[in-house]
Amino acid sequence: MATFMDVHHGMTGITADQLAAAHQADLDIEASENVQFKQAWADPASGTVYCLSEAPSADAIQRVHERAGHKADEIHPVPLSV
Amino acid sequence: MATFMDVHHGMTGITADQLAAAHQADLDIEASENVQFKQAWADPASGTVYCLSEAPSADAIQRVHERAGHKADEIHPVPLSV
Repeated sequence: MATFMDVHHGMTGITADQLAAAHQADLDIEASENVQFKQAWADPASGTVYCLSEAPSADAIQRVHERAGHKADEIHPVPLSV
Repeated sequence: MATFMDVHHGMTGITADQLAAAHQADLDIEASENVQFKQAWADPASGTVYCLSEAPSADAIQRVHERAGHKADEIHPVPLSV
């Protein structure tokens, strides 16, 4: 398992309810890919969403996001943190 | 105070020690701008660093990062989180 930050663009105007629903859609199916989404942050003005997760691979994260209806634009492993 | 995610590019090959030193350099002076850096994550392969903070403004964050020697490339307010 490793830590990843994935980024979604084009989410301009996302609301708190929409962010919560999107995150819940990930949580509902994440176990099938052994992914654990930890936190997500959204900037409705620029349409950027950041998701922090623990996962076996970037591909596993993308499969969850795709099945939940919101493919990630970038997925970066972040092996270092402070 | 608001929550921000800032992003640094071009940090390819950053090490754990370098990330810790950069973060400490921010912490050493953040109080002067009423900024609180919370967490940071780094992807040495793509050279991307993400910093989560509480701050009065994006400008305050940039002043800290500039004085610490590592200007941010993007600073996004993230008013929504889950």
